Amino acid sequence: MSQGDYIRALREVAQSSGSILDSNQDLSAYEIGARHDAGRAAGVLRPSSTEEASRLLAVCVEQGLTVIPQSGNTGVVSGSTPDESGTQLVFSLDRLKGIDVNLRNRSVRVGAGVRLSELNDTLDKHGLFFPIDLGADPMIGGMLSTNTGGGRFLRYGDVRQNTLGVTAVLADPDGTILDLSQGLRKNNIGVDWKQVFIGTMGSFGIVTEAVLNLERRPQQSATALIVPSSDEAVYDVLAVLETELGSQLSAFEGMSGNAIRHALNHVPGLRNPFANGDIPDFVILVEATRTWSPREGELSIDDLLEACLAQIWELDSAPLADALVGRPEEIWAMRHALSEGVKSAGHLFAFDLAFERGVLMDFLTYMRTDLPSEFPELEICDFGHYGDGGVHFNLSHPGGPPTDLAVYETRLRDWVFDVTMQRFRGSFSAEHGIGRKNQAYFQKYTPEVIKRLNKALKNATSPAPLGAAQFH
Amino acid sequence: MSQGDYIRALREVAQSSGSILDSNQDLSAYEIGARHDAGRAAGVLRPSSTEEASRLLAVCVEQGLTVIPQSGNTGVVSGSTPDESGTQLVFSLDRLKGIDVNLRNRSVRVGAGVRLSELNDTLDKHGLFFPIDLGADPMIGGMLSTNTGGGRFLRYGDVRQNTLGVTAVLADPDGTILDLSQGLRKNNIGVDWKQVFIGTMGSFGIVTEAVLNLERRPQQSATALIVPSSDEAVYDVLAVLETELGSQLSAFEGMSGNAIRHALNHVPGLRNPFANGDIPDFVILVEATRTWSPREGELSIDDLLEACLAQIWELDSAPLADALVGRPEEIWAMRHALSEGVKSAGHLFAFDLAFERGVLMDFLTYMRTDLPSEFPELEICDFGHYGDGGVHFNLSHPGGPPTDLAVYETRLRDWVFDVTMQRFRGSFSAEHGIGRKNQAYFQKYTPEVIKRLNKALKNATSPAPLGAAQFH
Repeated sequence: MSQGDYIRALREVAQSSGSILDSNQDLSAYEIGARHDAGRAAGVLRPSSTEEASRLLAVCVEQGLTVIPQSGNTGVVSGSTPDESGTQLVFSLDRLKGIDVNLRNRSVRVGAGVRLSELNDTLDKHGLFFPIDLGADPMIGGMLSTNTGGGRFLRYGDVRQNTLGVTAVLADPDGTILDLSQGLRKNNIGVDWKQVFIGTMGSFGIVTEAVLNLERRPQQSATALIVPSSDEAVYDVLAVLETELGSQLSAFEGMSGNAIRHALNHVPGLRNPFANGDIPDFVILVEATRTWSPREGELSIDDLLEACLAQIWELDSAPLADALVGRPEEIWAMRHALSEGVKSAGHLFAFDLAFERGVLMDFLTYMRTDLPSEFPELEICDFGHYGDGGVHFNLSHPGGPPTDLAVYETRLRDWVFDVTMQRFRGSFSAEHGIGRKNQAYFQKYTPEVIKRLNKALKNATSPAPLGAAQFH
Repeated sequence: MSQGDYIRALREVAQSSGSILDSNQDLSAYEIGARHDAGRAAGVLRPSSTEEASRLLAVCVEQGLTVIPQSGNTGVVSGSTPDESGTQLVFSLDRLKGIDVNLRNRSVRVGAGVRLSELNDTLDKHGLFFPIDLGADPMIGGMLSTNTGGGRFLRYGDVRQNTLGVTAVLADPDGTILDLSQGLRKNNIGVDWKQVFIGTMGSFGIVTEAVLNLERRPQQSATALIVPSSDEAVYDVLAVLETELGSQLSAFEGMSGNAIRHALNHVPGLRNPFANGDIPDFVILVEATRTWSPREGELSIDDLLEACLAQIWELDSAPLADALVGRPEEIWAMRHALSEGVKSAGHLFAFDLAFERGVLMDFLTYMRTDLPSEFPELEICDFGHYGDGGVHFNLSHPGGPPTDLAVYETRLRDWVFDVTMQRFRGSFSAEHGIGRKNQAYFQKYTPEVIKRLNKALKNATSPAPLGAAQFH
C-alpha cells in the first residue's frame, strides 16, 4: 500500500484538511524530542475531537499503520517521537484544547492537548491549580501517559492520584471510544479501567480528554535550606517536619553540593546563600505552604518553620549541621537551576530512579563509595524528591563526552540499573515512563508473567501497534 | 468427583490440618454475612501463607471448584459469603496476620487477615495510623477488595490511594503468585497491575498481603455542627472551609434531620445538641484535625474553627442558618449512632451512592420532591460523606417491612438506581463493591465494551471461577 492510498483514506474521514500533515510538509516539530532524539514521521494526524481521533485511528488500524501518540513532546525517554524508519505516523493531540472547570466538584474536564501552564493560567482566577509541579511544561496527555510526579508529590501525589476520569480511543478496527470520564471521587463498580491508560505511554489506548482533581492554590509559603549532619539524619528531620507541619509540608527536596555548585557557576543571576559561600555536600530544601491568607492571632508561616527547625536542633540525635529560612524565590531559583547547571558541567548521564524512602539514602551512600571504583572519572551531582524516594541521579563526565560514548553509556546504565533494581529494589523509571531509550531495560527487568499479562491486556484493548514503547 | 476426593487433594498440599475445615465442622461463622445473608459452604480453606494459598488455589482450579475469598466478612453486598448451593469453598484469609512497620517509608506490610483495629493498635505507638475511617472493623483483604473510602476520604483518599503494593494469588492452574509488593511511591514501568486487584471483590486474584501508606495520627481536633441556609449554601461553606483550613479539614459529613432524630430516639446516651432541642432538616458535621500538639503562639484549633465559621457568617450569600462548635466526642457519638438509629426506625432500605460533589445536593433535592410521589410511605433518612460526593441514602419503611418485601424492594431499587445512574450520572456502588446483592444492577448499567474488557482481563489473570461477583 502506497503512502498516497492511506493518506487518501485518512482524508476521507478527517474533519478538516488541517487534521493531516503529510511528508511533503515540514514535520520536524513533531519528529524531534526534548532530549534531541529525532526520527522521521510518515505524516502527522491532528484530530480536533475525540470522534475524529476515533475515525482516524480506525483507518490506521485498517491500513496496518503504526501510530505514535504525542502531546507536548517534552518527554525524555523517546516515547513520543517516531523512529527513523519514516513509516510511523505521529498522532498529535495538540488540537484537543477544551478546559471546562467544575468549581463545586473541584475538578476540570480538559483536552489532552492543553499545556499544564495553560490549564493553571485558566484556574488561577478561581484560586485553584492542578498540583503537579514540574520543571517542563508538558501537555495533559503526556502527563497521564508518564504519570508524572514532580516536586510536590509528597503533598499532592502523582497524576494517577489526581485523575478522576479519562476518555480513551482504542487502536482496534472500530477505533472504540471508552468513556470513563465521570468525575466521581468514589465509584466501585468493578475494574477501574482508567488506571490502564495512566503511565503506559499510550500503548493501550490514546487518552483524548481527562477529568482532573484540582487543589486550592497556596497563599503563603516559607522555605528553608537544611544541612543534615549525616545521611541517617535526613529521616529524623523528615519525621519531625511531617508531624509538625502536617500537610503544610509541601516539598522535601534533596540537592547534592555538586549540583548546587554547577548551578551557581553556570546559571546567571543566582546568589550563593551559604555562610562564607561554602557549599555543603548535601542540602535539603524544605517548603511549607498554606492555602489561606495570613490570619490574625496565627503564627506566621515563617515563624512556624523557624519553630520546627528549633525543635529539630534540640533533638538528642543532633540531626542538623546547619539550617536557614530564606527567601522562597531565591531558594527555588537555585533549585530550578540545578538541571541547567548539571548540563553545563560536562557530559550528563541522567537517571530517573526511585526507592523506598528509607532506602534512598543507603543507595546514595553506596554510590558515593562504589561508583568511583567502577567509573572514577564521573561526578555524582544528584538532586530530587527525597520526601517520596525519587532521585534524579545525575552523573557528569567532565570536559565532554567520553570516547566511545555509546559503549560507555551502555556499560554505565547497565551498572547503575543493576544496582538500582537488584541491590536496592528500586525503580529505573520513577516518573519518565518507558520509551525507545529505556525499552531494553524494561525487557530485562520485567518478569515473564507481567509481560504475559501485558500482552493479553494489549490484545484486549488496542491490538494494533500503538506508541513507541512495548510492554510485552 | 466426590467431596472426599478434593478434600484429600487439598489436604495433600496444605501446611497443617487447620488449613482446611470441611462440612462436618461448624462453618456458620464463614457462611453468614454482616447483613444476614447466609449461604452454605462446601468447606473452608484457611491458608497461613501466600505459598499455601497458591497451592490450595491451584488444587481448586484443577478440581474445578468455585472459591469465594473472604477476610473479615463485614461486607454488605453478599460479596464474601458462599451461595446456597453448598458447592462453593470459602477461601478465608483470616490466618494471614503479619504486620511489619517501615517507619522511614511511612508504610506497613500487612497480611490480608489483619483487622483494621489490630493494625491501628500496632501503629499507635509509632504515632501513625492507616487513615481509612470506617464504622465497621473489616480485615485488610476486604478493604482492598471493596476499595473502601469512609469518613475521612476528603482528607486522605480511599484504599486505592493508600496502597503502595500487593501480593496476589491467581486462580490459574499454577496458582501463580504475583509479587507487586514493592513499597515504592513512584514507579512507572508500564501497567500498574495492583490496581486490577483493588475494588474488584477478589474476582481477578486473591490479595494475600499489601503494602500500605500510613499517615501521622492527629493530635488535636475540633468539631462543629453547621446548619446551611439552603442546599446551595453547602457549597459556599465547603469552599471556604477547604481554603481556610487546607488539609486540616478532615471531615465534611452530611446528616439528615430524620437520621439524627432516629439516633437520638433509639440510641441511649446521646445528648441533643441543638438549641431548644429543635432538630434541623439538614446538618453538616465539620472536623478539623492537626498532626501536631498545641504550640505556643498558635491559634488553637477551636479558635481556628470559630474564626472560619465567623468568616462564613459574614459572606454575602448568607449560607449559614446556625453553627456551633461542640465537643468532638459528643458530636461523633451522634454521627456514629446514625446507622443504628435508622435501623431502629422501621424497615431500612440502604443505598450506597456517589455523585459529583456539585450534583449531590441536586440529587437529594430531587428525591425530597419526587420520592413521595412514587413511594409516599418512605422516609428519607440519609447521611454520608458529602465532601466527596458519597451518600448513604437510607429509606425507612415505618412500622416494619412492607408486604411483598421482595417485589417492593426490587421496584424501589430499580427506581432509585435509575435516578442515580441515568438522571444524575452517579454510582450505585460508592464504596461497598459488587456482590450477589447488586450483581443484577452491574449487568444492567455496565456497557458491553466494559464487560468484554473485563472478560478478557479475567481470562488473562484468573480464568477459573473466583469470588461472588461476576464482571462480565
